[in-house]
Amino acid sequence: MLKLYDLAGADPAHRFSPFCWRARMAIAHKGLAVETLPWRFTETDRLVFSGQGKVPVLVDGDSFVADSWAIAHWLEDNWPERPSLFGGAGGRAAACFVNQWADTVLNPAILPMVILDIHDRLRPVDQAYFRRSREQRFGRRLEDIQSGREQRLGAFRDLLQPVRATLARQPFLGGDAMAYPDYIVFGSLQWARVSTPFELLADDDPVAAWRDRLLDAHGGLARAVRCPPR
Amino acid sequence: MLKLYDLAGADPAHRFSPFCWRARMAIAHKGLAVETLPWRFTETDRLVFSGQGKVPVLVDGDSFVADSWAIAHWLEDNWPERPSLFGGAGGRAAACFVNQWADTVLNPAILPMVILDIHDRLRPVDQAYFRRSREQRFGRRLEDIQSGREQRLGAFRDLLQPVRATLARQPFLGGDAMAYPDYIVFGSLQWARVSTPFELLADDDPVAAWRDRLLDAHGGLARAVRCPPR
Repeated sequence: MLKLYDLAGADPAHRFSPFCWRARMAIAHKGLAVETLPWRFTETDRLVFSGQGKVPVLVDGDSFVADSWAIAHWLEDNWPERPSLFGGAGGRAAACFVNQWADTVLNPAILPMVILDIHDRLRPVDQAYFRRSREQRFGRRLEDIQSGREQRLGAFRDLLQPVRATLARQPFLGGDAMAYPDYIVFGSLQWARVSTPFELLADDDPVAAWRDRLLDAHGGLARAVRCPPR
Repeated sequence: MLKLYDLAGADPAHRFSPFCWRARMAIAHKGLAVETLPWRFTETDRLVFSGQGKVPVLVDGDSFVADSWAIAHWLEDNWPERPSLFGGAGGRAAACFVNQWADTVLNPAILPMVILDIHDRLRPVDQAYFRRSREQRFGRRLEDIQSGREQRLGAFRDLLQPVRATLARQPFLGGDAMAYPDYIVFGSLQWARVSTPFELLADDDPVAAWRDRLLDAHGGLARAVRCPPR
């Protein structure tokens, strides 16, 4: 069985990494069984075998692969007879743009709206690491980074316009059925959903309806995770 | 031979529509011959046959197809044996996101930086239409919309980050070879390139190097258009 090192909070059932959610949804899309191993920010010793210090890391027997994008390619290449994540070479190439948009635009917009709430659900030792590293990166206190998120919500929702416009033309980012481009963007929204009671999407946003379909997918895998009450 | 109604300025050789450039590059990608018919904003009577008033409109015998996205699908479906624009169903679906990103993020960022320069290269009758319709949309004079573009250039270049990050992972948005996702984004940059002497890209930007490869493509089709001197 596959094993996936999966970022966790103080509660080992709190799994919140957007990149790990991409990998979990991709593994489920392929219909593969996986054991997810909760891993915390400061447990770098447990990842020494992988040559780096971040999750997701997928382990299959004696092989391992780190990085959500590399994991998606590895799944597609090693289980070509299972449902495709990319729908061909062109899909793989164009999904790279979706991936880069999520990494450079979407995630940087979400992080300042959830960063303190993420911190609050970590173990004390991980809180100390998280606060130190993130405050150094932003040059501000976590409290100040997250403050005022209500005022930033409109701009955040505008930023989702390419997703919304795509979903006006087709039911999924992957076309008629969900595929890896969906899991990329979903991972980011799931990161927020499980980390904070602060709702990023308006009820009547088609992106929320699409997210609901993703939450229902693969036996409700992503809906099963406990969320802060809204 | 195919015919394409192609947006033109006062000089019939000045072809500047981002959407028409998508179509022209897609037709060239398929290796098809096309006669481009210069069309101006106010010549709606010439498009009555198409049921609407915008270009590009592609005519093939008794058939016609309007809208760049529909044209790309039509080319792919009618010439499946020619080089693929999308690289499969997954590519077609994921290219929709690139298309929507260009339409909702990239083009709206470019337009205010080139809008007066676009106006200045139109016939007087088209200038009057263009000024009236665009000033109504923006609620400001063309001069005021374009003013201060030097200060907006940094934010514009930041906005290209998903393109830049994708090109750091693969030579083209379409993967190892150029494809429709490249033509989508290229069309927008070509729109600016032929409309204004104001250069949007830094010389050392990998996006500029990629644009150069697109300008060289298909016999230098896009490079052959006269540009304002820089």
